[in-house]
Amino acid sequence: MSSFPAGPVLVIGCGLIGTSVGLALSARGAIVHLQDALPANVELAVSRGAGTAAAPASDPVLVVVAVPPAMVVDVVAAALDIWPSSLVTDVASVKSGIQAAISLLPGASRYVGGHPMAGSERSGPMAASAQLFEGRPWAVTPAPATEPAVRDTVVDLALLVGAVPMIMDAAAHDRAVALVSHVPQVMSVLTAARLNDAPEAHLDLAGPGLRDVTRIAGSDTSLWLDILGSNAADVRLVLEQVRDDLDRVIETLGHDEEGLVEVLESGRRGTTLIPGKHGTMPTDLESVYVQVADTPGQLSRLMADAGESGVNIEDLRLDHDLGRAVGLAEIAVAAGLSSTLVEALIARGWSAYR
Amino acid sequence: MSSFPAGPVLVIGCGLIGTSVGLALSARGAIVHLQDALPANVELAVSRGAGTAAAPASDPVLVVVAVPPAMVVDVVAAALDIWPSSLVTDVASVKSGIQAAISLLPGASRYVGGHPMAGSERSGPMAASAQLFEGRPWAVTPAPATEPAVRDTVVDLALLVGAVPMIMDAAAHDRAVALVSHVPQVMSVLTAARLNDAPEAHLDLAGPGLRDVTRIAGSDTSLWLDILGSNAADVRLVLEQVRDDLDRVIETLGHDEEGLVEVLESGRRGTTLIPGKHGTMPTDLESVYVQVADTPGQLSRLMADAGESGVNIEDLRLDHDLGRAVGLAEIAVAAGLSSTLVEALIARGWSAYR
Repeated sequence: MSSFPAGPVLVIGCGLIGTSVGLALSARGAIVHLQDALPANVELAVSRGAGTAAAPASDPVLVVVAVPPAMVVDVVAAALDIWPSSLVTDVASVKSGIQAAISLLPGASRYVGGHPMAGSERSGPMAASAQLFEGRPWAVTPAPATEPAVRDTVVDLALLVGAVPMIMDAAAHDRAVALVSHVPQVMSVLTAARLNDAPEAHLDLAGPGLRDVTRIAGSDTSLWLDILGSNAADVRLVLEQVRDDLDRVIETLGHDEEGLVEVLESGRRGTTLIPGKHGTMPTDLESVYVQVADTPGQLSRLMADAGESGVNIEDLRLDHDLGRAVGLAEIAVAAGLSSTLVEALIARGWSAYR
Repeated sequence: MSSFPAGPVLVIGCGLIGTSVGLALSARGAIVHLQDALPANVELAVSRGAGTAAAPASDPVLVVVAVPPAMVVDVVAAALDIWPSSLVTDVASVKSGIQAAISLLPGASRYVGGHPMAGSERSGPMAASAQLFEGRPWAVTPAPATEPAVRDTVVDLALLVGAVPMIMDAAAHDRAVALVSHVPQVMSVLTAARLNDAPEAHLDLAGPGLRDVTRIAGSDTSLWLDILGSNAADVRLVLEQVRDDLDRVIETLGHDEEGLVEVLESGRRGTTLIPGKHGTMPTDLESVYVQVADTPGQLSRLMADAGESGVNIEDLRLDHDLGRAVGLAEIAVAAGLSSTLVEALIARGWSAYR
């Protein structure tokens, strides 16, 4: 890793992402200057240790623009103008439109787009954390005219704060996030929206599957309005393919098993393509179910007993049972190890099964 | 609770559900007879302690038909015929069609439909568990002609095995499961299906949201083909409403913010209607994020330290970071308690934040 940063960094926008960048860089000894249209945000970020409110004495090495997406182009333009030797990046979640607008500016070659994939469901400087980017992808989207120096600097920034830099062009990035983030968000919303007309008793039949599918539908509306609007073309393209499949399900339901099987199998195949932990496919895991009383210390005892079995816990979910003070813990372990864990837990008095 | 069962119970079908019923009843001292078209399944179920392979000497108090959905009507008809004083129920996940067919049979008043909402993603007697029904809804769907005795007996069965009986008519049940189970399944499949055409690098941007939405799409195709086919009309009705909303999103994307806001807000509202733990709405919880190294014992230590803080853990999720041996645990606690937990964890050396 290089010795980035070789001088002060300026973060413009002290929301969740900007303040987290400030915290992560400050924690590693960098000089960070902070700006925000709201002085209260700067004060909060400074009080949390994200940097200083003082203006940079000379051109910063890097300017990180972390303002709301609609303001990014104007703020990047101003930064390129005010600090003629600074490199500039942003953190907006959709890249092509911003890049196209900036490419027309003087100094555009000193800018590269970036997108740390972290923390979209919380906001504000108080939610910020120096650890926010640990292990998260950080997309870096150079244009043909981008100077290698700014691309490399943002890659160094991402590495320094613990993220995994992924270099891709802006159009590919926007297609990718449409597929893995924006369309799943819409699908979750569409599923949750149908619940509004249901009698309450019907919803009492809800299980963990419904909660999984609809969890992200509870996210902030204005944020998603902005994201979906900025990536409208790519999102629409995928949603039209979804509609084709949906039409096919509606048509085949109840009388064309073959057509329905094709859609179901296509979904099943799709789930195997999602990278799991360290590249482990979800199919390589087995589940163990354990009843856990809803009192402090129970999960602790369970994890201690599981730990003593020597079987590593790959994933863990808690599922709340209906109308009683007991939860069901689903523990995922590597294939072949579930019996070992079940036996170990039963021997220690747990109600466990595969 | 009554003293059910007042005599032997016959379970026909030793798959996951039938064997689990046998295990749960046997564990509580009931006499359970087991039958299955495959002798190997009966042997396995008997070896696990679910009951006896001997035929009942006289009419069982209750016959639980736990065969594949397509065979339920024939097996119930035979049971009503062979044991003229027995009460009969089934466990199929769609009820109206089965009930309509059985209503034409002699002895139909001794039958009531049932549906324990548990365990659909695993199968076979080896996956069975006496605890499978703990805290799960068990729908009981009497018809107008159903004798109260059989309804009450299945309610007692559900209570005895730890489930929460919910009495509703078959049509309402089928509409409810279309909404809370079958349509979410289809939506998950449609989302996952879109991943098949994506370049691998695009999927590297996948986050926990995509994994949540697509998790259930990995379920067994033939099971879902059967379920969706049996509930085709109700599922189609909801899917057509989904398509209307989807069309609206496709149309409004990028140029009609108001229309898009309405759909997004409708989804957000829908998520608040899903019953949470003991009726707690998801909005009453706050999240704490903690980095956890991927080695045995780490989760144990985390839970122990969290337990010592005195803050109860309402929910817990593990999220695996990209390309590194560290996970992010998301711990949900009651509103107002997240700062306490964060401080307690930081004091014990954890990298924790809200």
